[in-house]
Amino acid sequence: MNELNDIYANFVVELRRGVTNLVVLNQCQQPTYGYQLVKELADSGIPLEANTVYPLLRRLEDQGLLRSDWDTSTDKPRKYYQITENGLTLLAQITAYWRESVKNIESILEV
Amino acid sequence: MNELNDIYANFVVELRRGVTNLVVLNQCQQPTYGYQLVKELADSGIPLEANTVYPLLRRLEDQGLLRSDWDTSTDKPRKYYQITENGLTLLAQITAYWRESVKNIESILEV
Repeated sequence: MNELNDIYANFVVELRRGVTNLVVLNQCQQPTYGYQLVKELADSGIPLEANTVYPLLRRLEDQGLLRSDWDTSTDKPRKYYQITENGLTLLAQITAYWRESVKNIESILEV
Repeated sequence: MNELNDIYANFVVELRRGVTNLVVLNQCQQPTYGYQLVKELADSGIPLEANTVYPLLRRLEDQGLLRSDWDTSTDKPRKYYQITENGLTLLAQITAYWRESVKNIESILEV
């Protein structure tokens, strides 16, 4: 039974990995800083580790899908990430793919 | 733009990996042989490579989630896979997780 739990945990990890780009890009349509993003997703039932989200934000910026700006107007400077034009293009593609996949999988599960 | 295509392709691969266990276990509620499974999934808009599906069937059998029986009654012997009790338990868990995830992600995408 322990092994079943391991297999289940592995499924959860793999599924979460697949949708992480989607939800992070989606949330960055508004300027968002790392901790805020982690909290918003957790509040929506999508808990992602900070040590998953922070490197992902940097990677998406390196890939030109997000850009970042420092807000230094407060005591605690924060780096805000926001989606770029390329990021919006990709977000539209992967959202369409996600919805198509959900539809196809639901049709299989219901048979 | 080529890089965007690569990023999109990578997303597709990761998402597909996450749902592969789900759809394969689901289809094996009926005795199913490898090629039949590949075809059924492709017909439902979920194309999986044969060289993904065949090793996965063997792995799921090793994990005790599927069992297999040879049908030697025809000229072309076929190995049929069918879900076990443990497999059904896991399938129920991952189906519930999948549906909860879809609901949470949809709620984020719609904001």
